[in-house]
Amino acid sequence: MKCRICRAKANVYLRYANAAFCKEHFIKFFERRVRRAIERFEMIEKGDKVVVAVSGGKDSLALLYVLNELSKTMDFEILAVTIDLGIGEYSKLSVEIAKKNYERLGVDYRIIELGDYGFTMDEVAKYRISGRICGICGTAKRYILNKVAKEEGASKLATGHNLDDFLQVILQGYLYGNLGDLARYYPVSPSLPGLVARIKPLVTTPEKDSLIYTIAKGIEYVVMECPYSLRASSQDLKNAIFYLEERRPGTRFSMFNTYVKMIHPLIREAYFKGGVLKKCKECGEPTNADVCLFCRVKSSVLAKKGA
Amino acid sequence: MKCRICRAKANVYLRYANAAFCKEHFIKFFERRVRRAIERFEMIEKGDKVVVAVSGGKDSLALLYVLNELSKTMDFEILAVTIDLGIGEYSKLSVEIAKKNYERLGVDYRIIELGDYGFTMDEVAKYRISGRICGICGTAKRYILNKVAKEEGASKLATGHNLDDFLQVILQGYLYGNLGDLARYYPVSPSLPGLVARIKPLVTTPEKDSLIYTIAKGIEYVVMECPYSLRASSQDLKNAIFYLEERRPGTRFSMFNTYVKMIHPLIREAYFKGGVLKKCKECGEPTNADVCLFCRVKSSVLAKKGA
Repeated sequence: MKCRICRAKANVYLRYANAAFCKEHFIKFFERRVRRAIERFEMIEKGDKVVVAVSGGKDSLALLYVLNELSKTMDFEILAVTIDLGIGEYSKLSVEIAKKNYERLGVDYRIIELGDYGFTMDEVAKYRISGRICGICGTAKRYILNKVAKEEGASKLATGHNLDDFLQVILQGYLYGNLGDLARYYPVSPSLPGLVARIKPLVTTPEKDSLIYTIAKGIEYVVMECPYSLRASSQDLKNAIFYLEERRPGTRFSMFNTYVKMIHPLIREAYFKGGVLKKCKECGEPTNADVCLFCRVKSSVLAKKGA
Repeated sequence: MKCRICRAKANVYLRYANAAFCKEHFIKFFERRVRRAIERFEMIEKGDKVVVAVSGGKDSLALLYVLNELSKTMDFEILAVTIDLGIGEYSKLSVEIAKKNYERLGVDYRIIELGDYGFTMDEVAKYRISGRICGICGTAKRYILNKVAKEEGASKLATGHNLDDFLQVILQGYLYGNLGDLARYYPVSPSLPGLVARIKPLVTTPEKDSLIYTIAKGIEYVVMECPYSLRASSQDLKNAIFYLEERRPGTRFSMFNTYVKMIHPLIREAYFKGGVLKKCKECGEPTNADVCLFCRVKSSVLAKKGA
């Protein structure tokens, strides 16, 4: 097969697009698609300071490299942030690999220790704090990223959620009826008092393409799986979507567009609870409750530690 | 395992309900669920005359037996209708098996020849009439069933669409955005001028349960597949749903309820085109176009036959 652009020998074939690319033109194709998603959903404006959340996995590193590239022509600034979640060797490795990439790119970055905020994820596991561990980890990451983004004066917070991650959440909603969650689920979440606007620049990027991009760019990323993710069960939703995509190439983009253009506006109108966020009585961060979930987890861990 | 009701040896285990039944109590469970669906969606009123569309397959025969049973206590009357579609041996066998069941039950019935209306499905295939053949067959069946129901003074038209059929159409809409179709897709379709109200009493019945019911009741049904259905591709949507149901028992009922209670009302409000139906210039039956699809197919077949 030959590259669609330059007719050189192709290295990559994308079935959903029925197109082949050489390495160089795949990289351009990939970056252009992210740029188009940014423009389509008005994710970034000129002069924005964008915090890029980097776990060390392939998606967040692909995001870092693309945004670093696009920042040169689109006139915005990036700050990479990695949270050391305190998950034994896994976190050590993740931080180490993130740093290597920061130094390779020469980008500004911060490494934040979850432990400095009161607990580690290993403690959450050890003391069997109630709630799904992946849910607690997600809460901790969102809490810290938002706090750090504010402290750094950032206007946007970018995460590496790809197309398959996004569709998984939508399918979950279609199947189990959590439409209150879907009402807030969109490629961009506007800024609110105390909350930095969140953006998902890879929302139109299939997971596999992120992988190809990291390989094409020679990016070292964390291959090790989080030891706690074995308990996660959301993979079967992705598998069902992959199964359909295999048999009906293009299904994922169609599902994405149906949601974004047609179904999300209806759900948002019917289920979005605007409401003003309160301030957490303990830390002052925005929350729906009196005390935010982060502070409640922290108290649980401290109580069990003291016990 | 023991029957949930009588503690006798169980013959059937339903994973989604985590319940086992003996033959007799499975039959009661099955019929009660259909009765509940009829009540929940107000499908049948006292005094209704219900045309039951019977292809000879397991779902439509299960429907016939349940409705025959329920008609004894719910005070409505049934008339079974089978269309001979003119698909070689397949149609002959289907009609023969339908008749056997009608005679076994002693129910009133009609056998209608599609050929008497101007063409057969074998002719549609032979002359390669444009359009998906399964789509044309569906149109022909709906057309004739509605016409016959009116002629017989029926107030309802019942079809054997089961839960899996229903979910497949919904998933199709979620994936490919045909929300105009979903706006009209519901367990019941109201009667309109020229259109008899359509009902799907098996809409909460999983396909496999229909099969078990036909076996439990000793119902002979057509096992042969329609020779044209090999070209149908909708099975992969059902497979994706089965895959999730296997891993997350109850997913199908949850998807059904999410659609019926939450998502369909929004889609209906936004995408339903009321509009008055016109009368077909050729046959006078209700249609959106000047000439209805049935008459157009008929003309195409006659033109090719004459040519």
